[in-house]
This record gives sequence, C-alpha cells and structure tokens, in this order.
Amino acid sequence: MFLRNCWYVAATESEVGLQPLARTLLGRPVLLYRTGGGKAVALEDRCCHRNLPLSMGAREGDDIRCGYHGLKFAPDGNCVEIPGQTQIPPGTQVTSYPLIEKWNFIWIWMGDPALRNDTLLPDWRCLDDQPGLTRTMGNDGKPLPMQCHWELNNDNLLDLTHVVYVHADTLGGAGLDRFPITTERLPRAVRMMRWSENVTPPPLLAQLAKYNGAIVDRWQATLCELPSHCTIDAGFGPPGEIGRDGDWDKGVRLRALITATPETETTSFMFYQQVRNFAVGNAEISKRFIANIRDIFLDDVHVMEGQQRTNSARPDAPRIEIRADAPLIAMHRVIEQYAAKESAAG
Amino acid sequence: MFLRNCWYVAATESEVGLQPLARTLLGRPVLLYRTGGGKAVALEDRCCHRNLPLSMGAREGDDIRCGYHGLKFAPDGNCVEIPGQTQIPPGTQVTSYPLIEKWNFIWIWMGDPALRNDTLLPDWRCLDDQPGLTRTMGNDGKPLPMQCHWELNNDNLLDLTHVVYVHADTLGGAGLDRFPITTERLPRAVRMMRWSENVTPPPLLAQLAKYNGAIVDRWQATLCELPSHCTIDAGFGPPGEIGRDGDWDKGVRLRALITATPETETTSFMFYQQVRNFAVGNAEISKRFIANIRDIFLDDVHVMEGQQRTNSARPDAPRIEIRADAPLIAMHRVIEQYAAKESAAG
Amino acid sequence: MFLRNCWYVAATESEVGLQPLARTLLGRPVLLYRTGGGKAVALEDRCCHRNLPLSMGAREGDDIRCGYHGLKFAPDGNCVEIPGQTQIPPGTQVTSYPLIEKWNFIWIWMGDPALRNDTLLPDWRCLDDQPGLTRTMGNDGKPLPMQCHWELNNDNLLDLTHVVYVHADTLGGAGLDRFPITTERLPRAVRMMRWSENVTPPPLLAQLAKYNGAIVDRWQATLCELPSHCTIDAGFGPPGEIGRDGDWDKGVRLRALITATPETETTSFMFYQQVRNFAVGNAEISKRFIANIRDIFLDDVHVMEGQQRTNSARPDAPRIEIRADAPLIAMHRVIEQYAAKESAAG
Repeated sequence: MFLRNCWYVAATESEVGLQPLARTLLGRPVLLYRTGGGKAVALEDRCCHRNLPLSMGAREGDDIRCGYHGLKFAPDGNCVEIPGQTQIPPGTQVTSYPLIEKWNFIWIWMGDPALRNDTLLPDWRCLDDQPGLTRTMGNDGKPLPMQCHWELNNDNLLDLTHVVYVHADTLGGAGLDRFPITTERLPRAVRMMRWSENVTPPPLLAQLAKYNGAIVDRWQATLCELPSHCTIDAGFGPPGEIGRDGDWDKGVRLRALITATPETETTSFMFYQQVRNFAVGNAEISKRFIANIRDIFLDDVHVMEGQQRTNSARPDAPRIEIRADAPLIAMHRVIEQYAAKESAAG
Repeated sequence: MFLRNCWYVAATESEVGLQPLARTLLGRPVLLYRTGGGKAVALEDRCCHRNLPLSMGAREGDDIRCGYHGLKFAPDGNCVEIPGQTQIPPGTQVTSYPLIEKWNFIWIWMGDPALRNDTLLPDWRCLDDQPGLTRTMGNDGKPLPMQCHWELNNDNLLDLTHVVYVHADTLGGAGLDRFPITTERLPRAVRMMRWSENVTPPPLLAQLAKYNGAIVDRWQATLCELPSHCTIDAGFGPPGEIGRDGDWDKGVRLRALITATPETETTSFMFYQQVRNFAVGNAEISKRFIANIRDIFLDDVHVMEGQQRTNSARPDAPRIEIRADAPLIAMHRVIEQYAAKESAAG
Repeated sequence: MFLRNCWYVAATESEVGLQPLARTLLGRPVLLYRTGGGKAVALEDRCCHRNLPLSMGAREGDDIRCGYHGLKFAPDGNCVEIPGQTQIPPGTQVTSYPLIEKWNFIWIWMGDPALRNDTLLPDWRCLDDQPGLTRTMGNDGKPLPMQCHWELNNDNLLDLTHVVYVHADTLGGAGLDRFPITTERLPRAVRMMRWSENVTPPPLLAQLAKYNGAIVDRWQATLCELPSHCTIDAGFGPPGEIGRDGDWDKGVRLRALITATPETETTSFMFYQQVRNFAVGNAEISKRFIANIRDIFLDDVHVMEGQQRTNSARPDAPRIEIRADAPLIAMHRVIEQYAAKESAAG
C-alpha cells in the first residue's frame, strides 16, 4: 500500500509541542509531542493495553500517560509504569518511530528500523540559511489536507505544463508548451526540465519581483525524489542573458519544496516551503507570497481531488499518455521498483 | 446493474446550456453542454489523459478543453488538440453519448451504439402542443433527487392504491379499493387500469378544476414502458356520464409523465411533466399545480427512500404479494427478461 | 454477531407512547408503541408487503397501519387487514418481539421465542421502591448513544481503576490502585470487587452527601450479568466502621444500573439509572446528580469511542493484559461460551 522504507514529513516543527498531536500517517495513528528538553517524539497512537489512543492521555515529564488506566510510556515506546502492579509484562510497548528534525520539518521513518538510512532524506539544502535568499513556510506552518492519493502530487509536479491551465493568472504564461521537456532518470529520483525562450513571465512572480519585461527566457525544473519529495526550481530572466546552463540566481528564482505524506490510501497531506531570491527579507512580500502560493496550491488540490474521484469511480477506465508524461511515467517506474522490493522483502 | 440499451432522460432541456453540467447517470460521470448552435452534447466526464473530470474544464467553441493539461475534445468525443504535440495518439477519445431532444427532455442512449433505436422512446405524444391542454414541467425544470433504486418508482406508479394512504388529502379518495384493477402485459410495457364508480373525487384536482360534485366515476391508469417511463392517466367525471371506455377528455383529466433515471445502484432522479385539460392556459393555476404536485411527489420520494433503507438493511427479508401487485410483478418480469437479454449479449 | 437469547433494554418506559418510536436494535429495525390500554408493543419495523418501515405509518386503535398501501398489523404481528381484498395470504406477518416492562425499562427478547426465559432478567431489585433510597433515571429518560461496540461498556465497568484517570475530579481518588481486586466467576456473570482502606473519598459523592472526612474506607463492586447488565455498587464510610463484609448501607452508597444495548456492530445505546442512600428525596440533589452522572458517563463514552476507532483501524494490533483485567477477561469467556452455544444451535 505504501512505500515504508523512506522518510516522510510527519509535521512541521511548529506543529509539535508539549501537547500531544494526533495524526494518521501511512494508515497508522501516530502521536507526536516534545519532551521537556524539546526533543520530538513519535509513538504509535494506541495504548497496547485497551487500545485507547494515547493522544487522549497526557504528557507527564518526558512520557505519555494513557488516559484510561494510567499506563505510562517512555519516548522509546516502552511502558515504564502500570498502576496497581509492579511487574511490567514483556511486550508492553508501543512502536516509537525514528524522527529527524531538519529544514523546519519533522521527518519520520515508519519502515523497518534496521533499514533506517539518514542519507535518504531529500537534498533540500536550499532551505539552509544563506545570504540572498528568503525562506517561507507554506500555509503558515500547517499542511494542506488532500482527499487524494499522495502520488497524484508527484504527477502534478512532474508535468508543469499544467500551470498554463490551472494557474493561468499566476504561474502561467503563453508559449511554454512549444518547448520540449527533458527527462533524467536517476536511481531513486526523476528530474524534469523545460527551458523556454522568448515567452511571457509568470505573472505573479514578475509582479512580486517588480520585473517589468514582457518577454523572458524561463525555466521550470522538478526533481522528484522517492517517495514524494519534489524540488521545483522555476524562474526567468531577460532573453539571452542567463542561459539554460547558466547561473539561474541571476534571474528571478523560486524554489518550492513540496512533499505529500500519505494519510490513508486516498487522503494525504501536502507540506511545503519556498525559497526566493527576490524581495529578500521583505516581510510584506513574504506575507502576500504565502497567501498567493496557498491559493495556487489549493487549485492543485482541487484538481487532484477531481482526479481522485474519477480514479475511485472508474479505476479501470482506459487512459492515454502524452509526450509531457515521460517524467511522471519514469517516476511511476521508480516507485513500482521500490514497492516490489519492499514487497519481496516481506 | 442497469438496463443499458434504452433511452433515459439525462436532463430537462432548460438544465443544459453553454456551461458544462456534470451528472452521474447509470453509474457513469457524464458531462452535458450545448454547442454554440444550441445542439446538446453528452460526453463521458473524464479526460482520458489523467482522469480530471472534463466538467472542471471549459467549453471552447463547440469543444471542451480539459482544465488540467489542455486537451481539447470535440462533441463526437475525439481529442482534437494536445498542447505541446502535434500528433494525437490513437484512442485519445472519450465516449460521446447519443442524445435526442424531445418533449422538453434530453434523452440519452448509454448502451451499445450499434443498437440505438429511436423507436424505443416512450409514447409521450400527449406532450405535443395541442389545443385544450396545458403542459407544465415538474419541479420548475429540475429533477427530484431520490435516495433509492430507480425501479421503486415503477412499483409506486403501478400500484396507485397508494394515493389513499400517501396522498389522502390531495389525490386520495374513499372507496377506490373496492374496485378491481386490470393488468395488461405488452412486449416492453405493462398497463394497469382501475375504473371506480360512485366514489369521491381526488380533492386537489376537484379544487383546481372547480368541480363541485361529491360523487364521481374515476379512472386511474398507468402505462409503464421500459425501463422506467410511466404515463399516469387519472381523472373523473359525473357518475354515469363518461364510462370506462368513453372519452376521458370529457372529464377532468390529468396525465403525468414520470420517469426515473438511475444515478447509482441506490440513487436516482425523478423527471416529470404534467398535461391537464382543466384551467387551460391559467398561469396562476399552473404555478399552484406545479407546487402541489412537487409536494405530492416528495411524499412519494419519502416513502421510496424508506423502502430503500429497509431493502438495504434487510435484502433477504421475506415479503408477501397482494392482489394489487399484479401490474408491478408483471413489470418486474419484463425488466428481468431484458436484463437477461443484455447480460447474455455481454 | 450478537447474543440473541437474552433480554436487552429496548427503551425507557417514558420513551414509548402512542406514537411509534423507531429504533435499530441488534441490527434490526424495531418499532415500539403502546396500545390504547398502555401495553408496550415491539414489532419488526418493516411492512412485509413492500418493505416500508411501519414507523412511517400510524397507530390505529391497538394496531399499526402501513403508510403505503394500508396493510394493518395487530400487536402480535399478524396482518388483520389488506385494503382491496378479503383474503390475507398466509405468512402476512411481521415479527412481534416479547417485552417485559420492569424497573422503568422496557426489556426486549429478540432471540428464539421458544427459549424465552423471564428469569434471565438481571437482578436489579435495588430499583424497587423502598424506604431510605432515592432512584434517578439517567439522562432524563433517554439512552446515551455510543459509537462503539456494546461490549466495551462491560470492559469499562469491570475495571473501575479507570475512575482515577477518566473521572479524577468526580469519582476518582488517591490510593485505590494499591488494593487488589477479586474476581468471582458465576455461570452467567462475573463479579469484581475492590475494598480500599484509608483512601480519599470520591469527590462528587462526598460533596453531594455532605461528607467531610478526608480519609475513608471505600468499596467498588461490579456485577456484570449476560449480556451487558452491570450493577455498580460504590461507596465509602469512616475508616474501620463498615468493613468489607459489613453493612454498606451504613456508608454513603450509590448503585448504578447500567446496560448497553447493541444498535449495530459498532454502535450501541447506554441505558442507566442510579439508586442512592444519601440526600434521600432531595429533588435538587437529584437534578444535579443526574447532570453530573451524565457528564461522567459522556467521558466514558468518549473513551470507548476512542477505543472503537483504534479497534476498527487496527483490529489485529497486539495487546497486553494487566492484573486488573481479570474480571473483564472472565466476562469475555462467559460471552464467548454463550455465543458459541447460540452459534451451535444455529
């Protein structure tokens, strides 16, 4: 059902505090909280005694006490107290999931603990603090809930032609589809790129960056890493000045880091941040930008939820492929390979 | 699941305009719209590329452009444009369903196109313009949604004894059930008739027709044609003046044309119109009549939805038959025969 | 799915009057009403003709007339009239369920009528009128709906340690879990008891009974009789004065009679009453007590609904047992034995 041996974003850093946060991830109820020292903890959200969600209990020191009969669980998932008895039976424990806090997100490993591999985080170093860039958290620190399968988000971001139709007034632009896309297949990822010359700039970015040129050279690139971690690199500059293989930071450049974490088979969470090299440090622009991007992504969610309704109603309806699908088809293959591998490993 | 090789009402004529209308019919999402020339079109409501409902796109000339990646489909269902490529792969098409506009309804054929047969429309010529009759569209041009199987509507209309209990104050009347019904079995239809003498008139019709007699001769007749097209002929006249085989237009006469179109296995749409020979051309009476009939039919819907709840909860509960069930049992047989035929044909 | 050969509470006496009351019990739609003489009747809530719920019809004398075609059913379930025909076909009947009105509840037998056994009512004689006791009906004559399996209520009441965590401010108290519980296995029931010495009194009871002592001896006892009838006996007195085997009526004593009636596999109704030996006849205290107990039981419902969500999401998740589970494990065995017996009997 889900790729398990990889990292997912479980929450943004600001969502998780001393109070337990309940969230279903990969079909499993999970409880997130922080210890007194500020360390994030993720536990299976059910007491192994009578199945009450532990999120209905309370943090007590660094531990969680069940709200039904008072069993207390430590951050490692082991029960450390059963009121009324001194002995704790073997197996009195809940799953504790490994977490990494990085780039303002809390990443969770819900697969085989023995296979945990921290190098499988996506390469999102553009989120590190650095001069000349301003980072904004999408949707003010909360994910967007989506009533659709997580993989539709990969599909959406690996075919950016959709900006012409779904985001015409903000990220669209005339002429994009005249230019071919390239597809690069990597072992655990797919890279899509389109370089368009002498086209119109994306209206929203031109406006926020106060760019007045009517015609630009423009790039759209997506790196989609297993399972659902997408880096969108998009921007533009005066015709002829930057070049497909030139320094994109000379132009108006936006990177959007977007990932979909499955909640169930047909619902998911979209987490995202943006990094821009224009209006750097401008809080007013940041505020507008966060609101604009949220509206844009809600349009994407609307589309993906529409697809999901058809997918659910007509799972076997025949479908065709177009040229622009090459990157997403390549990514489907990568996911299928890893799913088969996990399935074979039991 | 559904009888497919027959005509259903997809919409009233006034429901379909230049803007796409999405409606699920026989379990399939369908998109209805009109071309610039006013011709109605029905397409499968999903882009064959990435499954976005085409109703989330937009009409462009006579065509529909998908709102995701811009594929454009003509009224015949063929894709005529794929942005970014010149070649259109074979099979890039969606189903286009044959339509007939007649009697203020848009009729759809969702079965085998090779078997399309326009003579299978019901015989609703009483809806043609003609002197001495006034036609009214039920529910002001919209169907009534019903949370029940479409066939329950046939059952309801083939046993009009229910007017005594469900519509006591409007269409009911004392004494009806003393008179026998007759059942006529036709190849694709069933006709039910009851002629009652010296009974009370249906209160609503007597009131609207300003008929003051306390005792009447009264008829109730239903022709139910495959799959769900019912012509109710009901009326009354002074005792002894008209006669069972006489000219019913001499009395106060109402014909109600009612059909149920399946949406899913357990939901459907009731479309209906009425033709009356009293208060002819009286707009005020028409307005009241439309409202009254709507209230009456909502009572029927309430009953049928109650049945559906039991049918869903207790599908195998034992049931008995009464004498008045003969017509609906006959109609069940007709439907079963045709369903078996369709099933055998694959 | 359900134990059938036993009595369940179908409704409180005040819920059932001349108007039909529809309620699903053990997965079956049931109609409850009273005859003109005041006798309660329970019928299968569907007409055996066309499946309309009889609760959509109307009482007529002591009978119920279907709201569709007018079939009339007597309290014994037999059809006594079919409009339009004199003969009533054999089998024209609906199930009539045996009822007993006792202790302000209406008890229903939905199992094999041949096995009806009135001695299987629980022993709730403490609800009989008697001097020195005041009886209050829980939730002012209505059950509490619960989105959970009925058996979770047994589990909840057979492990009263939960008062420390779920009802800390009202029924809780420090020190309870230092004292062991005893489990008594009876043929059709389980009895749990805990006697705690030198502990704090339950705050709500102490307040309502105007008891000022800080330290008490305290008892909590549950008798759980098949299938779901629980008598909670709880109270306290000055240390050393009453004794585990003494006369509990010398202390502040509350008995709560609580039963869960299954509606479906995952929903149920909690019916309950209380009997107290303090503030006897005090209407003001009764009013507050009813409200307080309702709040407390809603907290229980909240917990059980949380368990149900986990049980539904993770039916096979491993669980452990603690010492305090002995009574509820014993009761599971009793229920399994009787379920197996019913299953073997077909």
